[in-house]
Amino acid sequence: MNDINFAVLGTGGIGRRALEVSADKDELTPIAACDRHGVAVNHDGLDVDELLAATEGNIASDGGTTIESGGDDIKEHGDDKGVVASAQAEPTETPIEDIIAEYEAIDAVLIALPNLEHDFIPTVAERFANAGYEGVLVDVLKRSRVIGMLDDREEQLEESGITFVCGAGATPGLLTGVAALAAQSFIEIEEVEIWWGVGLKSGYEDNRGTVREDIAHLPDYDIESARALSDEEIEEIVDAHDGVIEFNDMEHADDVLLERAGICDAEDVTVGGVLDLRNDEKPTTTTVKVTGRTFDGEVGTNTFELDDDTSMEANVNGPALGYLKAAVRRNWTGDYGVYGPAELMPGF
Amino acid sequence: MNDINFAVLGTGGIGRRALEVSADKDELTPIAACDRHGVAVNHDGLDVDELLAATEGNIASDGGTTIESGGDDIKEHGDDKGVVASAQAEPTETPIEDIIAEYEAIDAVLIALPNLEHDFIPTVAERFANAGYEGVLVDVLKRSRVIGMLDDREEQLEESGITFVCGAGATPGLLTGVAALAAQSFIEIEEVEIWWGVGLKSGYEDNRGTVREDIAHLPDYDIESARALSDEEIEEIVDAHDGVIEFNDMEHADDVLLERAGICDAEDVTVGGVLDLRNDEKPTTTTVKVTGRTFDGEVGTNTFELDDDTSMEANVNGPALGYLKAAVRRNWTGDYGVYGPAELMPGF
Repeated sequence: MNDINFAVLGTGGIGRRALEVSADKDELTPIAACDRHGVAVNHDGLDVDELLAATEGNIASDGGTTIESGGDDIKEHGDDKGVVASAQAEPTETPIEDIIAEYEAIDAVLIALPNLEHDFIPTVAERFANAGYEGVLVDVLKRSRVIGMLDDREEQLEESGITFVCGAGATPGLLTGVAALAAQSFIEIEEVEIWWGVGLKSGYEDNRGTVREDIAHLPDYDIESARALSDEEIEEIVDAHDGVIEFNDMEHADDVLLERAGICDAEDVTVGGVLDLRNDEKPTTTTVKVTGRTFDGEVGTNTFELDDDTSMEANVNGPALGYLKAAVRRNWTGDYGVYGPAELMPGF
Repeated sequence: MNDINFAVLGTGGIGRRALEVSADKDELTPIAACDRHGVAVNHDGLDVDELLAATEGNIASDGGTTIESGGDDIKEHGDDKGVVASAQAEPTETPIEDIIAEYEAIDAVLIALPNLEHDFIPTVAERFANAGYEGVLVDVLKRSRVIGMLDDREEQLEESGITFVCGAGATPGLLTGVAALAAQSFIEIEEVEIWWGVGLKSGYEDNRGTVREDIAHLPDYDIESARALSDEEIEEIVDAHDGVIEFNDMEHADDVLLERAGICDAEDVTVGGVLDLRNDEKPTTTTVKVTGRTFDGEVGTNTFELDDDTSMEANVNGPALGYLKAAVRRNWTGDYGVYGPAELMPGF
């Protein structure tokens, strides 16, 4: 496979880790990255070490990050240094537009802004399509309802020559793909249960956006009210749970992504987990269980477990770049449109 | 996805089960099947129930099956009834040629003849290419050395418009794909361990070819000597092991298929397992363990387990048809060549 030049939108926890992981992937060359204040572009490849050092403590994925409809204004809480602190970067007020301007040099874009308005990622995709971008877009979104918004734009993306892989992190993403593979033993799926554990003591600062997004899944919150929380209010919620928050029946897109792939009904998929903000050890083992009926009439459960020693960051960023590579391979053969991780698996 | 018309070469255990599983897959229509004595073709879809009843006890995959170089003569041991016993079938002395003659109506071919000479499957692929077939070929081969023989023919397959997925059963196949996904947590893979259990009491008659092929992995045998064994000699070997045979360091193509996909070196992959011919319960749980190092310096092991209640047949045929569908999707976008299961996964 030829080298893949890719860009990262957002240099919060996920964007920074994706750049870091890409350094271990020979075929992947990061040539552009941005956050709200700055954009760094180098067609020969960014100096990832320098960029990571400059953006340490960056919280581009913080819940306050926003983009105004049709505009290019990423607003954020926090006082992080940002991309603009890098010697490779230029200050900008139009970071996404600046990345789009480089579209001819870019094979793939990782949209590492997980916690914006629901239509943010679909809108970004639309802007790339309008600019005439031919290539791959990958996101690590979580919410089920976003998938439909992408579907609404599928025709436009196809016409532009864009291959879009949505929900390509850990869950949805890695675990959705595993569920799709584990389903292959069966002719009918009864249930898919995804249960995750994340220990995020030392990684908390880098992942405040993720924590805020998770809080939106608690019974008394939704995405709007979670977005409105101050950092202090989030701390209070964490304290009220003694640092360990359990989530049930989360709106994770694994459900619609497995349904899209024809594997089961969305309602047969449950996602939950436990987030521990006081320990780095996982409070529970991340597990995927797929229960189904075989062609010869047995009912069984295939099970996948991530090692407790693999961090959330490892399980998001490896798969995100893996799906990115798979999408580029498709894009280069002229296979355009919107895909979920499970659709990149063997058909069911 | 549009309907896929597929053909099955061989109606032994794997071919018959693939036909049976396909009945539960809306998008898959079997339109042709053959064994050494007969060929059944119906462009509107075969009557699978009738064909299965007619071929019950068929052992087309028996170790004695052979095809002479350049010819079309499938010779077998046994006195099975075969496809020709079906009301849908015609007798033939050139079964593969008869299937190839239908190539314009066929989207995909499952080569369900696992235990022939090493160059059998590559030769069959070559014959389809020579005939001008554009479509998918899928096999469920096991031996590592066959992959190289397919690679030698890759250019010819590409020129014809063939997408070939090799080793698309359980191991290699399902478990190779799982290993490729499980590897996504890591930036470097230290070890992939595949350990399978198969209980084959009631399925023994249907899977004598598989048993013979497994015996070739025992320390005192190779594929030539195993092929030369009479059925009685095989029974003696089984008796000498009290019906339970353990295999270690098997030459299963998972190793080269994972190396092809850039996931690890072939030598870092081990495959072994236990075959129990006196019980239908699995003697050990089929497990895939992938050990690697994460980008943040941890070493961990991700683990996948197949439920003991899923049969070998379920775990071969579901994935084989799943990979077939994935390959057709590629083929229809003009993506030709030779792929292993791991290459259909997210890139590593």
